Amino acid sequence: MAQTSSTITRYDAYKQKMQQVADIRHAIAVLGWDQETYLPEKGAAFRGQQITTLSTLAHELFTAPQLGELLDALNREKETLEPVAAKNITLSLEDYQKNKKYPASFVAELSQTTNECYHAWINARKEGNYAVFQPVLNRMVELKRKEADLLGYVDHPYNALLNEYEKGATTTMLDKIFSDVKTALTPLLRNIEQRPQVKKDFLHLHYDRNRQWEFGIQLLKDMGYDMTAGRQDVSEHPFTISFSPQDVRVTTRIDENDFGNMTWSCIHEGGHALYEQGLDTTAYGLPSGEAASLGIHESQSRLWENNVGRSLVFWQHHYPQLQQLFPDNLGTVSLQDFYKAINLVQPSLIRTEADELTYHFHVMVRYEIEKGLLEGTYQTKDLREIWNSYYKEFLHVDVPNDTQGVLQDIHWSHGSFGYFPTYSLGSFYAAQFFTAAQQQIPGLTGQIAEGKYEALLSWLRQQVHRHGRYYTSNELCEKITGQPLDFKYFLEYATQKFGNIYGL
Amino acid sequence: MAQTSSTITRYDAYKQKMQQVADIRHAIAVLGWDQETYLPEKGAAFRGQQITTLSTLAHELFTAPQLGELLDALNREKETLEPVAAKNITLSLEDYQKNKKYPASFVAELSQTTNECYHAWINARKEGNYAVFQPVLNRMVELKRKEADLLGYVDHPYNALLNEYEKGATTTMLDKIFSDVKTALTPLLRNIEQRPQVKKDFLHLHYDRNRQWEFGIQLLKDMGYDMTAGRQDVSEHPFTISFSPQDVRVTTRIDENDFGNMTWSCIHEGGHALYEQGLDTTAYGLPSGEAASLGIHESQSRLWENNVGRSLVFWQHHYPQLQQLFPDNLGTVSLQDFYKAINLVQPSLIRTEADELTYHFHVMVRYEIEKGLLEGTYQTKDLREIWNSYYKEFLHVDVPNDTQGVLQDIHWSHGSFGYFPTYSLGSFYAAQFFTAAQQQIPGLTGQIAEGKYEALLSWLRQQVHRHGRYYTSNELCEKITGQPLDFKYFLEYATQKFGNIYGL
Repeated sequence: MAQTSSTITRYDAYKQKMQQVADIRHAIAVLGWDQETYLPEKGAAFRGQQITTLSTLAHELFTAPQLGELLDALNREKETLEPVAAKNITLSLEDYQKNKKYPASFVAELSQTTNECYHAWINARKEGNYAVFQPVLNRMVELKRKEADLLGYVDHPYNALLNEYEKGATTTMLDKIFSDVKTALTPLLRNIEQRPQVKKDFLHLHYDRNRQWEFGIQLLKDMGYDMTAGRQDVSEHPFTISFSPQDVRVTTRIDENDFGNMTWSCIHEGGHALYEQGLDTTAYGLPSGEAASLGIHESQSRLWENNVGRSLVFWQHHYPQLQQLFPDNLGTVSLQDFYKAINLVQPSLIRTEADELTYHFHVMVRYEIEKGLLEGTYQTKDLREIWNSYYKEFLHVDVPNDTQGVLQDIHWSHGSFGYFPTYSLGSFYAAQFFTAAQQQIPGLTGQIAEGKYEALLSWLRQQVHRHGRYYTSNELCEKITGQPLDFKYFLEYATQKFGNIYGL
Repeated sequence: MAQTSSTITRYDAYKQKMQQVADIRHAIAVLGWDQETYLPEKGAAFRGQQITTLSTLAHELFTAPQLGELLDALNREKETLEPVAAKNITLSLEDYQKNKKYPASFVAELSQTTNECYHAWINARKEGNYAVFQPVLNRMVELKRKEADLLGYVDHPYNALLNEYEKGATTTMLDKIFSDVKTALTPLLRNIEQRPQVKKDFLHLHYDRNRQWEFGIQLLKDMGYDMTAGRQDVSEHPFTISFSPQDVRVTTRIDENDFGNMTWSCIHEGGHALYEQGLDTTAYGLPSGEAASLGIHESQSRLWENNVGRSLVFWQHHYPQLQQLFPDNLGTVSLQDFYKAINLVQPSLIRTEADELTYHFHVMVRYEIEKGLLEGTYQTKDLREIWNSYYKEFLHVDVPNDTQGVLQDIHWSHGSFGYFPTYSLGSFYAAQFFTAAQQQIPGLTGQIAEGKYEALLSWLRQQVHRHGRYYTSNELCEKITGQPLDFKYFLEYATQKFGNIYGL
């Protein structure tokens, strides 16, 4: 069937409407970025209201009947469209139908509650008291249950929310993966526990703020992050945010007594940012110009953070630079000792500071809690106790206070339930992708040892970034690696790496 | 007539719609602030598009027929409303009717052209070549003529644009004022020319960036600027921008070889910001929560910048602090010499660096040019020559290049035609207001000499800020000073101050 001029007109109209929605969503993103970087204290209330207004508008525009009619018409004539355009229509129609399930009043209430919840979380952390957060969190959980009902689901209400971040993810799939994690990683962790622990005290000497900053910026540039299409700022919780592929910003935090905090946040967020900068600029506002899923997004940050950024070869190049910046702290520390220290495995309290192995137990805690809250077996009033007992069970640690416990993550205050599992999925995708990269890029290890990442970045651009949402996570995984997601790649990577470090 | 419950419902609906429009306009303001402070280079194109989309939406919402019907209904039952509410309806209806005159396509085109024009101006300045700016400026001028036609006017198309910034201002009124300026200030300037010039070389020694910054922040705090409801950043051109009375931001620029640049930009923008922070928070989005006019806005910045910030008593308190910060530069310079230097009168090239007297000749140049462009007696292609010849005529200086000449101001690139005259009006209002303040606040001069501004700020809050747009500029002036705007107050102030400095 030949493409008619009315199809072209309709596709252009669709594109224009999608870009308009994208413009508003990106404006919301700018307001959100400002909120977490530069907003003066008293500005919070009006800012919340402004974000709510824009969210409502974006929702109205994206659920307008005219857009629905356009999508229906284009869907009927889809076979006349180019494959990417056809996929855009399929995905936008899915998104549209999903969004139509949300009444405008629900969107406004969610936006307003998110704002209150975020500020309650901030205050609760200041006071170190979960009770300050609990009442608003409870409203948020109720809204999330309502959201699951609105969206509809098979088997488990949590599936509706998981699907928002990782299309196709289910509790059945995640129960299986986390069971594998427990089965396979527990003996590895037990073996490590019995080995003499490596030293890492030199990572906690005083590391000057400005020099850390300088080092982080240099790492971002070395990775290929385009500083003319982005910038780094400081925030409480590091994040990446995109206003277009031409303006993708990262934030970091600097702890002068913990060198690692800033460094791996830079590499991690840099990985996210490279993905966003690598999206197709001409597809701005369309599914083909958006990231495939959060799991795939996280695969990009984890690949850079861990598979590259915590490898021995990476530091062969960067460690001498670091020693020059901090000669008093690192001048007499060997590369091997540094490498071991940055890969120390030890159960701990804080997810974002966890090592690559115990990390997944942190995620598991959150997964179990979210699942329980959604199905109603857990109540927000009991969350402190539930959290602490899971930490005892999975990580063998006692939680000394709420700030280091149940209040440590920003996600629930943002209403992001179903997000955490994508962190583990991301690590597992990363391991599988990086194995493929090592097979497909000749001399990759040698290049990393020289601080050269062009070939790796270009491979990622080609294999992942440029496709946007054209492939689902699993399709992408099969396309790149020839197989669906398999935990064994992570297990092989981890067994080899930590076997070497701990002499197992 | 008693207020009915349906009136209350209608007024609430009106308020809600106005706040929604305000939310979008403030979101645009955040995007604009970011554009001039932190936007990475490549982000400009999509940012322009995002601002255009939001501008179009704000326009659509503010011109929606439902709002018109609501305003008409409330206008009919106005006598049942409280005076402030009734005035809000009158003003919003005026605004509404004015906005209805702009087709959505015009708004989008203006926003898009403004974005292009701004970037053309940036590039033209980089190259020091007006020709880079001229073609886009020409389109802007054509749009502005079209705008004047759309709005309608009496006597002169420029009146339509003037009215946007200063309700009631006309070329007739401004021709008269600028003629007074020329008649009265020219002999004063000629007398000053014949006196020995004061020394000011010490203002152009090296002033450390960070110390200047620190001093500026301290001045803002001393003035009463609430740092928890605002912040200062750096931009090419200093400005004040409000996202709500609880988030009013200022920017400054720092020249390490010109101490005055940062200092008076801080005080000037601080004056604007105090006005915005002093607006009624509960009237967010309503005329009673907005500034009266640009002339009145400028009266606040000028009063602080000049009547306070360039006075001898102000520096009695602050000069010792400044000497402590910069002992090498100022340790041996007396207060009197410093005071004379910061008030040096000398025709120059750059408006923002001009003294209080020649400043108005800079404004006059722009006024004459804008008037000429609007009526068609001037063409943009001739603007460099026209500019340079006016500078020769009014200020007796030769313009060496476009960056210091016709490209020096950001305003035309923003499409702000009709804005400049408010700078002079602001100075004249400031002189008249400050005369009243000195009469009405017991011991004001003594307080300023001690660095205490609470009484002055509270007087300004009471007399000016809290009223919002309830009074027009002229009503406000009569209310505060008992008379309409009169240039004689400025002339008296200037004659006395500069007579003393130059021993006339």
